[in-house]
Amino acid sequence: MGKKLTKRSEDYSKWYNELVVMADLAENSAVRGCMVIKPYGYAIWEKMQAELDKMFKATGHQNAYFPLFVPKSLFEAEEKNAEGFAKECAVVTHYRLKTDPEDNSKLMVDPEAKLEEELVVRPTSEAIIWSTYKNWIQSYRDLPILINQWANVVRWEMRTRLFLRTAEFLWQEGHTAHATKEEALEETKLINQLYADFVQNFMAIPVIQGVKSESERFAGAVETYCIEALMQDGKALQAGTSHFLGQNFAKAFDVKFATQTGGLEHVWASSWGVSTRLMGALIMTHSDDNGLVLPPNLAPIQVVIIPIYKGEEQLAGISEVANKIKNELIAEGISVKYDDRDNFKPGYKFNDYELKGVPIRIAIGPRDLENKVVEMARRDTLNKSSVPVSEVTENIKNTLDEIQLNLYSKALKFRDDHITEVNTFDDFKAVLSEKGGFVSAYWDGTSKTEEAIKKQTKATIRCITEDPSTEEGKCVYSEKPAKTRVLFAKAY
Amino acid sequence: MGKKLTKRSEDYSKWYNELVVMADLAENSAVRGCMVIKPYGYAIWEKMQAELDKMFKATGHQNAYFPLFVPKSLFEAEEKNAEGFAKECAVVTHYRLKTDPEDNSKLMVDPEAKLEEELVVRPTSEAIIWSTYKNWIQSYRDLPILINQWANVVRWEMRTRLFLRTAEFLWQEGHTAHATKEEALEETKLINQLYADFVQNFMAIPVIQGVKSESERFAGAVETYCIEALMQDGKALQAGTSHFLGQNFAKAFDVKFATQTGGLEHVWASSWGVSTRLMGALIMTHSDDNGLVLPPNLAPIQVVIIPIYKGEEQLAGISEVANKIKNELIAEGISVKYDDRDNFKPGYKFNDYELKGVPIRIAIGPRDLENKVVEMARRDTLNKSSVPVSEVTENIKNTLDEIQLNLYSKALKFRDDHITEVNTFDDFKAVLSEKGGFVSAYWDGTSKTEEAIKKQTKATIRCITEDPSTEEGKCVYSEKPAKTRVLFAKAY
Repeated sequence: MGKKLTKRSEDYSKWYNELVVMADLAENSAVRGCMVIKPYGYAIWEKMQAELDKMFKATGHQNAYFPLFVPKSLFEAEEKNAEGFAKECAVVTHYRLKTDPEDNSKLMVDPEAKLEEELVVRPTSEAIIWSTYKNWIQSYRDLPILINQWANVVRWEMRTRLFLRTAEFLWQEGHTAHATKEEALEETKLINQLYADFVQNFMAIPVIQGVKSESERFAGAVETYCIEALMQDGKALQAGTSHFLGQNFAKAFDVKFATQTGGLEHVWASSWGVSTRLMGALIMTHSDDNGLVLPPNLAPIQVVIIPIYKGEEQLAGISEVANKIKNELIAEGISVKYDDRDNFKPGYKFNDYELKGVPIRIAIGPRDLENKVVEMARRDTLNKSSVPVSEVTENIKNTLDEIQLNLYSKALKFRDDHITEVNTFDDFKAVLSEKGGFVSAYWDGTSKTEEAIKKQTKATIRCITEDPSTEEGKCVYSEKPAKTRVLFAKAY
Repeated sequence: MGKKLTKRSEDYSKWYNELVVMADLAENSAVRGCMVIKPYGYAIWEKMQAELDKMFKATGHQNAYFPLFVPKSLFEAEEKNAEGFAKECAVVTHYRLKTDPEDNSKLMVDPEAKLEEELVVRPTSEAIIWSTYKNWIQSYRDLPILINQWANVVRWEMRTRLFLRTAEFLWQEGHTAHATKEEALEETKLINQLYADFVQNFMAIPVIQGVKSESERFAGAVETYCIEALMQDGKALQAGTSHFLGQNFAKAFDVKFATQTGGLEHVWASSWGVSTRLMGALIMTHSDDNGLVLPPNLAPIQVVIIPIYKGEEQLAGISEVANKIKNELIAEGISVKYDDRDNFKPGYKFNDYELKGVPIRIAIGPRDLENKVVEMARRDTLNKSSVPVSEVTENIKNTLDEIQLNLYSKALKFRDDHITEVNTFDDFKAVLSEKGGFVSAYWDGTSKTEEAIKKQTKATIRCITEDPSTEEGKCVYSEKPAKTRVLFAKAY
């Protein structure tokens, strides 16, 4: 707490890195690129998990668990998928350590315990799951399969950042199998919408929905649907993807089913996931120079009550009121903490809960006690008000709802203010470097143009929205005819 | 469903293996020793998780997440722990695959992407966690730390069996840090009791509580507390352990704290875990020759309703009653499925839900409809009864409670009938080979005797209970003086 958080305007990236650590969300571990998710951060992730899990189950999905390891021969079966992930695979080659004969206090890999076939630590589970589905699917009666898995995955990233890009991360991955193309596509879109609802309504982060360009597609997918969010520094963040896999994995693993009419066809597939990366989006969308700002839906502590007192007697009087309020709030399903620790001063506590993003802070001093009021402070606006004790529960209930909405509105306004239509490449570059955000521009539809733009500006196509203007135009880069505007941005 | 389940009396081991697969709980995967936990099995595990998680949180524990990988140098820091797990470690040595130059459709490990330091896939997380705690603990004010983690771990077992012993398994592992020995011991015992309560009250499996002998202790622990259950074939199963780690890990990782009186001391520790192995205990404690028997607390479907009908009209009448019952049950928080699929016959459904252990089956036929009754069948006793529709909800509520208790009582009776006191080694061997179960015998306290007994009988000391008889005796093997009886058994 001694250290002061860097301001966003000074160094956004540093602000983020410091905030994650200072707010006790996560930290780097002894393992390169892998993070430790601390209890406070994990409690937020658990709230995301619980809500998503409920939404998956409400739409007919079931959870299951598949192996952490993928034998190399299975991993390489779907060529594009394998190619896409090969460069970042952690590989298990041995299954035993032995005492180092040169130093008995050390261990070494036992060369005699070399695996016949190497095992890839799953970077994603299509391969292992589709090799399993092969045995589950014979007939149309076995379809659809709607399965989700909560798991850890490993992608050996060279440059890592807490939550945003880590070698190991936690996620959920859905893997569904269908009898028809239409059904698989419908599932892919359903999940895209489910993700958008979750991120917008629950996390208060506005997103743009659409599909990816070919070069940004998931390796092995026919089409990737995405939700894209915008961070406060004007960079986009891919918040969740759902992939229409066509029959690619069914063909790679020879998964066919007997149709209702007696035919034999390859199965259609989707896969989809969101990860602990969403924690990064959460932090960067709402937080400020004082620290974390949490939407009430995700706050492990929604209300903190802090007594301001001198001596035991004053504390006793305040505690009586505080505990009454606390119990009323708990009865309303609101999570509340009464922090009467006497080895920390109120000022320290104020700063700490501000840093940790607790949505509402209630302070009660001796004068408040006399006047039968409390001081209520909102984390989102930093506004303070005096609230009669008799109205405090009702007021808090309403205020929590307001905060949730206000955070969304604020982020939405920022996002909408940062979608800029441009018609020349000079404007494109100027907007990107001066204003940031999404740049809406005509694109000729070629990967070549996309690549050239990326090389010059670091911006990529984040999203091709589904409701483009019908008007045709000229590509912002190649000046060739272009059917639709797409959204470019620099991205996390 | 075509295949019939092997009888327990014919081949218990085969019965178990078949049942796990036929009841759709789990299956072997393409990865040696790793299982796929299927949706039905995973739904049971989720219920265990939810209850345990609630119990952990109610006792002040928080969840967090630590890396999957442990750098070799950290892994070897606590010598006994390292030695105990070295022989079964999956080791990551490389972080990239590349296209095989000899066959472009294949991948190979890229020899240029060799890790400087090998990474062990965690077989347990003491090492990585204590290397982290080192940075979290400076003063007594930072203690206690009460953290739990839900995770996958890998132990390269040579002979594996679904749920009971798999190379990868799911578990929770608690890791706590304390200022005093007493507090750490208290925590260890608290969790031992929590596990006992969970397994007995929630899973309906009676357990014996106690400590392990030195040779059965967790590698790196000073004392291991355990709960031991007894399976129907007379073999014991270790259902959960909590370890008092003393200062072993604090010393290995140099974790010291400033005491309240200004000293500097090593931190005291506990660790504890239960795993998907509990699924094995669940199956083997309650199930019968017809299939799985699930305690209502753990049943993903507690009540199934099956219509018996000819033609749409009959079905419509039955469905009306069935849906009314279903909604009443749901309102009571009971999970219920109305299976009106028309491509399966009632007999098939009866068998299937019996195989899957659904606690209560309600069948409704046209005559039942006339008489305003339903047929209720209990999975535990296989008894059927006719219940007036007006009483069915109340009756089901009571019956579910009864089934939960009955399963526990039945298992308790079996367990108690299978604790046999012996005073000679001949009796010891005879009981083990003829009756099975726990053999209560005097033991001289030496590892040598324990080893000799194990070699001759395959029985190990499962548990040294905390309330031994005060009477001294003669060791059943060495005939040397022995302070107390201990429980031997063959074990999973």
